[in-house]
Amino acid sequence: MNTQRLESILQKLEKQNLSQMIISDPAAIFYLTGRYIDPGERLYALYISRSGKNRIFINNLFTVPEDLGVEKVRFSDTDDSIGLLCGAVEKGIPLGIDKIFPARFLLPVIERSGASAFQLSSICVDEARACKDEAERELMREASRLNDRAMARFRGLIREGVTEEAIAAQMADIYRELGVDGCSFEPLVGFGANCANGHHAPGKTVLKPGDTVLFDVGCKKNGYCADMTRTFFYKKVPSEKHRQIYETVRRANEAAEAILKPGVPLCEIDRAARRIIEEAGYGPNFTHRLGHFIGLEVHDYGDVSETATAVAEPGNIFSIEPGIYVEGEVGVRIEDLVLITEDGCEILNSYSKELDIVE
Amino acid sequence: MNTQRLESILQKLEKQNLSQMIISDPAAIFYLTGRYIDPGERLYALYISRSGKNRIFINNLFTVPEDLGVEKVRFSDTDDSIGLLCGAVEKGIPLGIDKIFPARFLLPVIERSGASAFQLSSICVDEARACKDEAERELMREASRLNDRAMARFRGLIREGVTEEAIAAQMADIYRELGVDGCSFEPLVGFGANCANGHHAPGKTVLKPGDTVLFDVGCKKNGYCADMTRTFFYKKVPSEKHRQIYETVRRANEAAEAILKPGVPLCEIDRAARRIIEEAGYGPNFTHRLGHFIGLEVHDYGDVSETATAVAEPGNIFSIEPGIYVEGEVGVRIEDLVLITEDGCEILNSYSKELDIVE
Repeated sequence: MNTQRLESILQKLEKQNLSQMIISDPAAIFYLTGRYIDPGERLYALYISRSGKNRIFINNLFTVPEDLGVEKVRFSDTDDSIGLLCGAVEKGIPLGIDKIFPARFLLPVIERSGASAFQLSSICVDEARACKDEAERELMREASRLNDRAMARFRGLIREGVTEEAIAAQMADIYRELGVDGCSFEPLVGFGANCANGHHAPGKTVLKPGDTVLFDVGCKKNGYCADMTRTFFYKKVPSEKHRQIYETVRRANEAAEAILKPGVPLCEIDRAARRIIEEAGYGPNFTHRLGHFIGLEVHDYGDVSETATAVAEPGNIFSIEPGIYVEGEVGVRIEDLVLITEDGCEILNSYSKELDIVE
Repeated sequence: MNTQRLESILQKLEKQNLSQMIISDPAAIFYLTGRYIDPGERLYALYISRSGKNRIFINNLFTVPEDLGVEKVRFSDTDDSIGLLCGAVEKGIPLGIDKIFPARFLLPVIERSGASAFQLSSICVDEARACKDEAERELMREASRLNDRAMARFRGLIREGVTEEAIAAQMADIYRELGVDGCSFEPLVGFGANCANGHHAPGKTVLKPGDTVLFDVGCKKNGYCADMTRTFFYKKVPSEKHRQIYETVRRANEAAEAILKPGVPLCEIDRAARRIIEEAGYGPNFTHRLGHFIGLEVHDYGDVSETATAVAEPGNIFSIEPGIYVEGEVGVRIEDLVLITEDGCEILNSYSKELDIVE
């Protein structure tokens, strides 16, 4: 286990009057142990405790020869794995619980563990993860560098007669050639009015002149996620309105990025972008938060929204992704990842945001 | 909503003395509404009640213009979505909870909803889903037909100098050409000793003569999952031991399939396969249950293991996948999907299980 990260989590637990916790998020376990397992529906949990009696519960199906720096408890599908886990819990005191711990494990743990209370305490892990250490920052830079390179090649896929799903399929190949581990999420590829749907899945729509082409894409490298969006035009900008929407989104993106530094409330970053979109008359068409934290997961804990009162801290990495969506007509989004540094910020994506008409 | 399926679930809830439940499994919601949404970390829930006050809670980010046959409650990222959900719950009586409902929603629901108790009740949905109706059976047949066709083409990828990851990458293209919706899980491709690791991820291992080649693959079509495994030999069978292991696994697979019909305890099906592997001296090397149920998810509720006392029922679809794994040396698994019919069974995979040496 990474003892520095563990100690940081235990200290945060102490502030919540907790001395023990069950962590079940595979990304959080990776954060501490360096080992990633996707357990499917099976129990997979790391029990941590101020007393040092840490244990990790792993089904026999997963081969784990290496030393994880924590006692392994192995079990098979037919064992009472919940009983084993409950046996590790210290009775009569509260137990911290991971946010994603599912009801099928949580309800029996509530019944059988003997802990005096059950308290959502992922925030202790999340806050530790939200401030990336230097090793993590470098991994995040590398993932976004690869994503920038991928975007340049994705632009080359924009050509007459192509469909959204054909582009999406080729993206996987390009990512592979660039040597990434995989996608951090399924690529979003939208043409024209489809871009107005924030969760449009690439379909059989054929590209036509005047379409916007929206790519919201991310790769994963060494466990860490990239995520960026660019919106291109194909052959022409079909109307002044389209141009105005594009430039408004770009200005909103840049206005938010211009004020990034430690101490700035996250809601003010959202406001900086949202104000520009509102002033252009598109306030109601910016239907989501400005950004989300990112790291081992594409959606790490933490968002950059109108209600986010926390302030930016060194090591925070999140997206800045304003958008304007006019249903049935047009959608534009421009997204970078940004890193808050000790004295300012780094924009992790360098791919151009200038209005780009692909011939 | 599919009223027949809803009624079946409500009846099962009643037997558990429940009249209300929160369903959050996207596959279960699809089962009832025909609409699939992947909500990521956001709240997505269907509240069902004997009183008929059913409601579905969907974040505004997801465009759902269609009538789902149930009142929609929409909310944005900054709304108190848990409060909205708790508002629907009838106070003072127990509330059924979905097995995958995560702690971040469950703990506040326990605190705020006013229900008198919280009871894991997915089993009511799972049991309904475990007995496929005729429409579902046909969809499952179709998914496995496509998977059989894919396997025949995957065999063609076995050639000198190829790596596991190169084959896995091409599988995605082949599936796409066959018109499936996607993979039901990441394809497992293993060569030689790597096959002994049940969860080996395709890597840079290069194929060499005498290797076993294990493909554990599944596609998804119209929401329903296929899943099958075949193990080939490349150029030669390297030893008599390898041949004996292969034939033992094949006989175990066929012995289990030979006894399938309604009324047979699932543990006896496991036993039929396991006995053959034990008699060959490889009992400890068959390290997992014989099979799992499958449908909208690749691992539906229900397993075919030594402790599964339930009996096979018409409409059950599960895998039969015995294996022998000798660490550092060899692994063989042969897997079909099978459907229990009113008077017997159908094997949904027809791809050959004869020992096959690929030249």
